Amino acid sequence: MRFISELRLDDGVLEREFTLGDIPGVLWTPGSTSAPVPLILVGHPGGLHMLRPRVAARARYYAAEYGFAAATIELPWSGDRPRSAAAEQARADLGRALGTGEPVGEIVDRLVLPLVEKAVPEWRAALDALLALPGIGGPVGYEGGVIAIGIGLAVADPRISAAAFFAGSFVPGALFEEARRITIPLQVLLQWDDEGNDRQAALELFDAFGSKEKTLHANLGGHTGVPRFELDAAARFFARHLQ
Amino acid sequence: MRFISELRLDDGVLEREFTLGDIPGVLWTPGSTSAPVPLILVGHPGGLHMLRPRVAARARYYAAEYGFAAATIELPWSGDRPRSAAAEQARADLGRALGTGEPVGEIVDRLVLPLVEKAVPEWRAALDALLALPGIGGPVGYEGGVIAIGIGLAVADPRISAAAFFAGSFVPGALFEEARRITIPLQVLLQWDDEGNDRQAALELFDAFGSKEKTLHANLGGHTGVPRFELDAAARFFARHLQ
Repeated sequence: MRFISELRLDDGVLEREFTLGDIPGVLWTPGSTSAPVPLILVGHPGGLHMLRPRVAARARYYAAEYGFAAATIELPWSGDRPRSAAAEQARADLGRALGTGEPVGEIVDRLVLPLVEKAVPEWRAALDALLALPGIGGPVGYEGGVIAIGIGLAVADPRISAAAFFAGSFVPGALFEEARRITIPLQVLLQWDDEGNDRQAALELFDAFGSKEKTLHANLGGHTGVPRFELDAAARFFARHLQ
Repeated sequence: MRFISELRLDDGVLEREFTLGDIPGVLWTPGSTSAPVPLILVGHPGGLHMLRPRVAARARYYAAEYGFAAATIELPWSGDRPRSAAAEQARADLGRALGTGEPVGEIVDRLVLPLVEKAVPEWRAALDALLALPGIGGPVGYEGGVIAIGIGLAVADPRISAAAFFAGSFVPGALFEEARRITIPLQVLLQWDDEGNDRQAALELFDAFGSKEKTLHANLGGHTGVPRFELDAAARFFARHLQ
């Protein structure tokens, strides 16, 4: 892990860009800390150039208001990283199928399963590097989308102690089985009128998680309409489980 | 409204029992306040003798942690209040029908609609009296069950500015229409495995509410298994809308 920029923000949070091999990422740490702090991995659908303001707003809130470290990395085949012809094809196929109302199951498998397979080891490598930094002590939470990556990561890595997923993207059928193996506390965010997401499938996924403590937060509105207060709800969820 | 007892609790909250005509009630106010404070009406299924500890715990939390006043009254035909033969019969019929798996729609109508009709004016009278007290200034929230009473009250009384309902009891079909008329911010609590409650009906009721801001909090577990952190989630919901 190599830090390539460092910026002290007006809320006291230190924002550092880094690279981990060829993977770009960003780390936010609180202004003043005495003991090592817990870490939240902030998930997103890929393309940090576009999404950076939204991801940074969440990460800075966790750091400034709750004293967590927060970090994100670019997803495979997104942003400045090399593209995958298969992923581009699957994405185009999905758009076309959604337009014509065809079934999307096979396309979702082609799009999401390879992404999970490549992204999970990358997040775990980032976690290795982040937890080796002074001042970051764990425990670790994962928040946001892509929920399929979050599921894969939570199953693969016992260091993830709690997760606040955004049920706002397609989940291959195979991952429902993985979901049953998850037992950490969960908070699942669902947009009730998400245009690109099947409400019933999201409720079934919530049902499938093996966790004893799991809470669904469903809000009126479309995919991008997550109310601002859900950020604080996520922070308080992590405060209960990581502090 | 006549106060009949007054107790200063160890968290500084002042707990006062009162009667409003023949209706017993309890008011909790924060230890120290400068300006008049908002008021939360704490709903329950009736029978304050039994439920008082749970209702008081919620009310005291709102008062001690968030500076709200909180109040409750006994429901019609419950506790020490005169019984209704029709309500007792409907309750017995409901128990039997649930045991045998018969349809309950007509029984729920007989049980809940007269209760709503009698309880809503009583809550409104209590609201008149409570808002006339020095130190209580509104705005007003309603929280808890019986959700059918909360719906009726929110439709009837424009002083109710926000509501955190517990979707844990039967709702007559007629009240779905009322639910569409509600436009205040809502937070709806649903126990995912509520033995006595139909999950699908609860989701349909959530769908029916006319409010632009509505959030569903679904938690794993049965009717009495509402996690303790939902109390703070309700308090923060009210803090957003009443303060």
